[in-house]
Amino acid sequence: MNPVIELLNAHRSIRRFTDRKIAPELLRELIQAGQSAATSSHVQAYSVIHVKNPANRETLAELAGGQDYIATCSDFLVFCADMKRPAEAAERAGADATRGMTEQLLVASVDTALMAQNVVVAAESEGLGICYIGGIRNNPQAVSDLLRLPEHVYPVFGLCLGYPDQTSEVKPRLPVEAILKEDYYRDDQAQVDAFDASMREYYQARSNTQKDTTWSQNLTPLFEHKVRPHMRDFLVSRGFEMK
Amino acid sequence: MNPVIELLNAHRSIRRFTDRKIAPELLRELIQAGQSAATSSHVQAYSVIHVKNPANRETLAELAGGQDYIATCSDFLVFCADMKRPAEAAERAGADATRGMTEQLLVASVDTALMAQNVVVAAESEGLGICYIGGIRNNPQAVSDLLRLPEHVYPVFGLCLGYPDQTSEVKPRLPVEAILKEDYYRDDQAQVDAFDASMREYYQARSNTQKDTTWSQNLTPLFEHKVRPHMRDFLVSRGFEMK
Repeated sequence: MNPVIELLNAHRSIRRFTDRKIAPELLRELIQAGQSAATSSHVQAYSVIHVKNPANRETLAELAGGQDYIATCSDFLVFCADMKRPAEAAERAGADATRGMTEQLLVASVDTALMAQNVVVAAESEGLGICYIGGIRNNPQAVSDLLRLPEHVYPVFGLCLGYPDQTSEVKPRLPVEAILKEDYYRDDQAQVDAFDASMREYYQARSNTQKDTTWSQNLTPLFEHKVRPHMRDFLVSRGFEMK
Repeated sequence: MNPVIELLNAHRSIRRFTDRKIAPELLRELIQAGQSAATSSHVQAYSVIHVKNPANRETLAELAGGQDYIATCSDFLVFCADMKRPAEAAERAGADATRGMTEQLLVASVDTALMAQNVVVAAESEGLGICYIGGIRNNPQAVSDLLRLPEHVYPVFGLCLGYPDQTSEVKPRLPVEAILKEDYYRDDQAQVDAFDASMREYYQARSNTQKDTTWSQNLTPLFEHKVRPHMRDFLVSRGFEMK
């Protein structure tokens, strides 16, 4: 296994950081490494808001459901899917640009995720720790107001970056046999059952907040309650009509 | 700049591959590295179809708009957003699972993209070349039929993998000043104009298929014509109702 793959396999979320700040030149280097990721038709449908204002970081920590590491990490970024820039560029080049297609929502969301994951790999290669913040979608309109996001731009997730001040185990993943399927989709309940058993052992043995649960049990609140049921109306109101 | 960041910055799409095959153990290692990426609430909402049947690869090459490298690369993968596995696992654990939320579509699409980008970084660290295939969404229902994808699973993109048989320049990206914005969203038309000028130089000087165009001009067909206008109805028909 080469050192890059070892780095990828060593990923775990970090939520406690030292006071050490990331050098601005390094942050810029991470974003550029992010931009090197593949992008659909070269559209580069993303923008990244670097939230420096401490009061705004406190507000975002609350809006994301009380995740205080948003305020305490070295740098907090909000990754936005951005169809405004390419649509307006196409218009200036003479196009009668259509907006609001479902395909455009997918392209921009995927472009943003590919870019962010490269930022994460680059960050971890420099000894930084990271934590994605999906909670930014708890209150996406308030986040959009705070960051003055225009129409056709929406916040997909946040990212905490900093020098780690905690150690934690790598969290297990589903067996590769469940994920990788030969030629056709196949049922993977047997692998899920085995994974549930191994996750129960993991939760009982891990160094902090031990509990008696499985992967499947942990997922129930995600499906029993409608999680972020506002997302559809929010996206439509921001010009992502899902046409 | 460390070797990992150098690797990320050296990315370019590869569409011509040697006959050398990827060892099955390496492919498995790449998928596991992909699974190490962050995943929203540990949901791991993805499956990967490894298309080995040569006739099916020919069919997919046609369905994706005549991209023959789908058939000629060493290995072709279809990355699918998969809400079926976690929803059914939650149900077996007692949940009355809601499906079809827009939020779930976003979570699964982003999870899939983060995972795939780790696969890509791992692949390139082993000297492989890759090409994402968004064209898999040209005919998503036919692709889903061919791969026997069930409801609540949709093909997000394909990925060609193999040992490169071409050299190509790294394609320029927007200036980091356009992408990275301090505290608030800001207009970036000046940077786009500068990028258009530099892209014109790039297209005029590059080693293959030189042309006289800009980034903005290249984007016009993406917005003038409705690209993949079937995606909304397709997703709804597959159980992604965007509620």
